[in-house]
Amino acid sequence: MKILLVGASGTLGSAIQNELKLKEDSYEVITAGRNSGDLRVDMSSIDSIKEMFEKLGSVDHVISAAGSAAMKPIEDLTNEDVLYSVQNKLLGQLNLVLIGQNYLNEKGSFTLTTGVIKDQPIKMGSMLSMTNGAVASFVKGAAIDFKKDIRINCVSPSVFDESMKDYGEYFIGVKPVPVKNAAKCFIESIEGDFNGHEFIVY
Amino acid sequence: MKILLVGASGTLGSAIQNELKLKEDSYEVITAGRNSGDLRVDMSSIDSIKEMFEKLGSVDHVISAAGSAAMKPIEDLTNEDVLYSVQNKLLGQLNLVLIGQNYLNEKGSFTLTTGVIKDQPIKMGSMLSMTNGAVASFVKGAAIDFKKDIRINCVSPSVFDESMKDYGEYFIGVKPVPVKNAAKCFIESIEGDFNGHEFIVY
Ligand SMILES: NC(=O)c1ccc[n+]([C@@H]2O[C@H](COP(=O)([O-])OP(=O)(O)OC[C@H]3O[C@@H](n4cnc5c(N)ncnc54)[C@H](OP(=O)(O)O)[C@@H]3O)[C@@H](O)[C@H]2O)c1
Ligand SMILES: NC(=O)c1ccc[n+]([C@@H]2O[C@H](COP(=O)([O-])OP(=O)(O)OC[C@H]3O[C@@H](n4cnc5c(N)ncnc54)[C@H](OP(=O)(O)O)[C@@H]3O)[C@@H](O)[C@H]2O)c1
Repeated sequence: MKILLVGASGTLGSAIQNELKLKEDSYEVITAGRNSGDLRVDMSSIDSIKEMFEKLGSVDHVISAAGSAAMKPIEDLTNEDVLYSVQNKLLGQLNLVLIGQNYLNEKGSFTLTTGVIKDQPIKMGSMLSMTNGAVASFVKGAAIDFKKDIRINCVSPSVFDESMKDYGEYFIGVKPVPVKNAAKCFIESIEGDFNGHEFIVY
Repeated sequence: MKILLVGASGTLGSAIQNELKLKEDSYEVITAGRNSGDLRVDMSSIDSIKEMFEKLGSVDHVISAAGSAAMKPIEDLTNEDVLYSVQNKLLGQLNLVLIGQNYLNEKGSFTLTTGVIKDQPIKMGSMLSMTNGAVASFVKGAAIDFKKDIRINCVSPSVFDESMKDYGEYFIGVKPVPVKNAAKCFIESIEGDFNGHEFIVY
């Protein structure tokens, strides 16, 4: 099974790689990111995503462990902040699916990343709430719409224990989880029969 | 109380107008739309929204009963379809808030519109699912973030009885509701103490 892992070098992406390595007889993992990975991609650009899939050829499972959005008080959000958020965490992931569906083998799957802030908001987090909610609902809509026999799910993690040193001050009142718990959901999404499912890790 | 009602001429907008008329001693309603209304606005354009608020001046409550998105099988969605959906139902409503917050009086409110498809998807509806989910989660994030004493909610209606003749064929398995039921939630959003709430009308 050929797996494309976008965002492989990040906190979440590295943990997913670790889980996939436990089954390295089953999986060939192709990593991707802007600055590292087997393939270079900036998922905020449609052309870059197309180029990546052209290089990759057909694939069984696509995982996105990437996607950033602006963090700012709502009074200070500029149009640039909004477009950055839409272009990255939202359309970046959505376009991985819209373009990637043409390269996915039957019985393949997509697994995207959302996050707790869609359900339990934090100060300055309205762009993260918005993009997370968009991706989660897109997954539900897409899951019942593919003509091809492919599945799509998402994983919505709480803030990671491993990220508390960087983001902890923003996540007051949110219980952190080990990144490994989230990573395991990506494996379950690939191997299980879930479709249109949101794995909640909080 | 001065109320701005964007999308006043539509199925939902007309029903909201009817509810507001029942209390015409309390409310002065200013209607807006692309082709009709006291003020003309295309909410897919930031400049047009800014112009509208400049003409309007300060306002107590802003209601959005507008917002369209592409309906197409996921295999056929073009980048134009995606951008149209994002620009209209998603960013149109979001920008009403980001720009409108500067014109809202203290104790004012925003009420946006999402829809059942975020929770119960339909064929060809992935862009409606996505935009509805984005708006609903944005509302949660924004509600706890305003420094000003203003509130924000959304209403998520099922397909309307009144729209079944037009859209019924797409909503197989979805129970329609009278548009009046949804309209009443906008009044409750204005008059009640709800904040960050999604009124579910299904
Ligand atoms: N950290 C948390 O506590 C937490 C909690 C809940 C949800 N999440 C979500 O989980 C995802 C990953 O978070 P993380 O903390 O693991 O992030 P991270 O450590 O910053 O890693 C991000 C990864 O994505 C890649 N990337 C970033 N932008 C990209 C782009 N435009 N195109 C392609 N690749 C891109 C980065 O590599 P390059 O720099 O080489 O591109 C990197 O591999 C995000 O969606 C985040 O919102 C995180
Ligand atoms: N109909 C249903 O069964 C149903 C069910 C659930 C949710 N909803 C949601 O409820 C909302 C209203 O639906 P509806 O059926 O009442 O729609 P509708 O009858 O088509 O009316 C849409 C209204 O919005 C205005 N409008 C459209 N695009 C606009 C833009 N870019 N800028 C400013 N105004 C614009 C239209 O006036 P102009 O043409 O003059 O601009 C009209 O007043 C939508 O968000 C829809 O998704 C509808």
